[in-house]
Amino acid sequence: MAQDKNKQVSQITDMDVDFAQWYTDVCTKAELIGYTKTKGMFILRPYGYAIWENIQAYLDRRFKETGHTNVAMPMLIPESLLQKEKDHVEGFAPECAWVTCGGSEKLDERMCIRPTSETLFCDHWADIVHSWRDLPMLYNQWCSVLRWEKTTRPFLRHREFLWQEGHTLHATAEEAIEETERMHRIYAELCEDVLAMPVVMGMKTDKEKFAGAERTYTIECMMHDKKALQNGTSHYFGDGFARAFGISFADKSNKQATPFETSWGITTRTIGGVIMTHGDNRGLVLPPKVAPIQVIVIPVAQHKEGVIEANEAVVERLQKAGFRVKMDASDNSPGWKFAEYEMKGVPLRLELGPKDMEKNQCVLVRRDSGEKSFVSLDGVEDTVNKMLEDIHTGLYQRAKKNLEDNTYACATLAEVKEKMESQGGFAKTMWCGDQACELKMKEEAGVSSRCIPFEQERLGDVCACCGKPAKHMVYWGVAY
Amino acid sequence: MAQDKNKQVSQITDMDVDFAQWYTDVCTKAELIGYTKTKGMFILRPYGYAIWENIQAYLDRRFKETGHTNVAMPMLIPESLLQKEKDHVEGFAPECAWVTCGGSEKLDERMCIRPTSETLFCDHWADIVHSWRDLPMLYNQWCSVLRWEKTTRPFLRHREFLWQEGHTLHATAEEAIEETERMHRIYAELCEDVLAMPVVMGMKTDKEKFAGAERTYTIECMMHDKKALQNGTSHYFGDGFARAFGISFADKSNKQATPFETSWGITTRTIGGVIMTHGDNRGLVLPPKVAPIQVIVIPVAQHKEGVIEANEAVVERLQKAGFRVKMDASDNSPGWKFAEYEMKGVPLRLELGPKDMEKNQCVLVRRDSGEKSFVSLDGVEDTVNKMLEDIHTGLYQRAKKNLEDNTYACATLAEVKEKMESQGGFAKTMWCGDQACELKMKEEAGVSSRCIPFEQERLGDVCACCGKPAKHMVYWGVAY
Repeated sequence: MAQDKNKQVSQITDMDVDFAQWYTDVCTKAELIGYTKTKGMFILRPYGYAIWENIQAYLDRRFKETGHTNVAMPMLIPESLLQKEKDHVEGFAPECAWVTCGGSEKLDERMCIRPTSETLFCDHWADIVHSWRDLPMLYNQWCSVLRWEKTTRPFLRHREFLWQEGHTLHATAEEAIEETERMHRIYAELCEDVLAMPVVMGMKTDKEKFAGAERTYTIECMMHDKKALQNGTSHYFGDGFARAFGISFADKSNKQATPFETSWGITTRTIGGVIMTHGDNRGLVLPPKVAPIQVIVIPVAQHKEGVIEANEAVVERLQKAGFRVKMDASDNSPGWKFAEYEMKGVPLRLELGPKDMEKNQCVLVRRDSGEKSFVSLDGVEDTVNKMLEDIHTGLYQRAKKNLEDNTYACATLAEVKEKMESQGGFAKTMWCGDQACELKMKEEAGVSSRCIPFEQERLGDVCACCGKPAKHMVYWGVAY
Repeated sequence: MAQDKNKQVSQITDMDVDFAQWYTDVCTKAELIGYTKTKGMFILRPYGYAIWENIQAYLDRRFKETGHTNVAMPMLIPESLLQKEKDHVEGFAPECAWVTCGGSEKLDERMCIRPTSETLFCDHWADIVHSWRDLPMLYNQWCSVLRWEKTTRPFLRHREFLWQEGHTLHATAEEAIEETERMHRIYAELCEDVLAMPVVMGMKTDKEKFAGAERTYTIECMMHDKKALQNGTSHYFGDGFARAFGISFADKSNKQATPFETSWGITTRTIGGVIMTHGDNRGLVLPPKVAPIQVIVIPVAQHKEGVIEANEAVVERLQKAGFRVKMDASDNSPGWKFAEYEMKGVPLRLELGPKDMEKNQCVLVRRDSGEKSFVSLDGVEDTVNKMLEDIHTGLYQRAKKNLEDNTYACATLAEVKEKMESQGGFAKTMWCGDQACELKMKEEAGVSSRCIPFEQERLGDVCACCGKPAKHMVYWGVAY
């Protein structure tokens, strides 16, 4: 059988030898990412983009169910508009890309490509919000943003990345906080229920929160190499932006009041998280709910009479049952096909040949465990459904074990340092709340605070760093 | 009953008095568009964006059914890459926005924000296309692009606009032409079947075609004011781009060959077309298939017992039947509500009060004709469905009549000029194929060639302009 020399499935680097190189190999060999002449930017190839579309479909549904509508704001922000909120501009201006010419003319005022769009939303609300009847404003935008990063990596750090940014405005602080927490939970549910990624939910310290926010809620995931990935953040701004932009409304008693704002976003880096949570030495392993192909159907001895038709019949049945199925009847060898779809992380492979036809059966091979089953074609839809569910659960449990096995309580900075060097993962310690101790942790143990988790434990009374009375328990780790 | 002073439904300009002002009034009063501090760019507000989402959903399904996959390319193009195809850069460079600084550093090479992405797709294909097995490449991208226009108008001409750009690569010219025509037909079906806009399908003259294309297929629609709107174009590039970018592949006999390219796009200006085709002096009139709200339910005497519940029950039934329904139980007056949803072009209004409840009926009012019917609640789903279909057909027929009544054959340039001044619309004439005559038509009669329609008629033997032997029949008009 002919094989395409240019589509040879090549070996990838062993993840235990060089995790970073393994990761890059998977991104390119699974055809998720393409490099371009635009430095620091990547192409999301069809297979990578399809994963994002599945994430989008889930989130867009959840956002709409919770009353949000989509909008499109301009991609350019005049410099004077970006400067309206002091903390915000300090955080973002140093990493903006600046447009200085339009056509052949130099602009009077330069504009940045949006690094995030709080300023545009606030400026719009200042125009259209007048009365308590106009509130809440529950907006979302699917778009890309630019941040001029010095070093970049596929999915994890792009100069341009795709995301959604939700922006909302509320009559009261309570409502705004409730919204911030609601969207935080939706991100956690995306991770756990859809992506099979266990999460630690909590709040960022003041040092780590978003530029201009009063509170930043975060989701922290542990990757296979035990590093942390921040995955979706939700910010409560108080009324700071609203004051800076002059947004006010007549309340029910007809007095002018200032509203409260939130924003929340999740990006394509989530796909990097999926790769580093579930992947193995044969490539990508995709959680079934976002896999662009859930079942790859491979005819065996496809030149024999009736084989293609029998395979097509199964494809049709599975599609009808709502699965994302593809048949590969190309003249590549079965061995090539097996390796190709393993590299692409397709959760289930279905093989069907003349012998199976005689027995009214097919072969199902799980990508996660490699387990092979002979199953009856009667009710194959239910069997596939059950297996995809099992794969989801199995992936989640494996990742959960990795998180639990590599999270430990430490009483002192020295202990954090020792455990980080010997094991890696998340250290939990008590903390006084002082930024000086956070900086010291970074300097001496190489870790940053990941979050103040909602699930607090009283590990002791004093800060692991300075010995003063402790305020919170904090998670520490090395982050992507 | 209380009314929101700031949401008063205001009078709009009479469309027969000042069509341009009427158009702008509708865009703002129906809350489709917002103005911003970024000059020449607009906000697509939730109601405007929801129309785009419905157009997207239709097209995305059609694109996927015809084998296309979505991708995301970078938004920035280095100047040297844009310059690779000569005609293309000449067409686009003068209207690009240029990024010259990233963070605090001046870039070595400036980059433009994509005005269109042929150069990025071609550069990527040069990397990944090697064999006939890799073809065809059937890609699409949903994104926004920038063109530094001097004058802008909502939807019709933005410096930034949302669109989709399809880019495909094929082994043979025949296949590429077939693809170009397939996508052209899909745009026509969007217009006719979904947006109720009759179209003239044809080919652009050399003067009017896309920079770098061998052929541009276009769809031309006639607006209520008899001007033309170009609405979706599909380009066949031959192998020009592929040669410029060094894309080649090993064909089945293992010889190196050059592939053939297409691109095709439709933008948010289509929404401008919908407004100007169907709108009236009470505001927007939306074709049911893209209306964000298809049925607005307005409880009558809503404070009376059981009224809200009865209305909610109808909403639930209609939602279950798959309609996009909203109930407005706010304390605004019924008169305010009627005007508000008329302004927003909602196809059907359903009223239900205590008297209707007694008779097991409701009132349905059509936005297009104002016709009011009392209909039984039994089978209200079918009645609504039938009425929405009738509205679609009615809108289409009215627009078709406008197109037919204002399209006429002319034998001479003088006749074109006279008819254009007295009536406006589309003139069809024979044409020699010479650009000089096209320029003369523009100069003397103020019209541009809209297209060489597929449905050719032999109106005479000679060019209406120069009297030399005619090659084609051409449509002429004043375009947006």
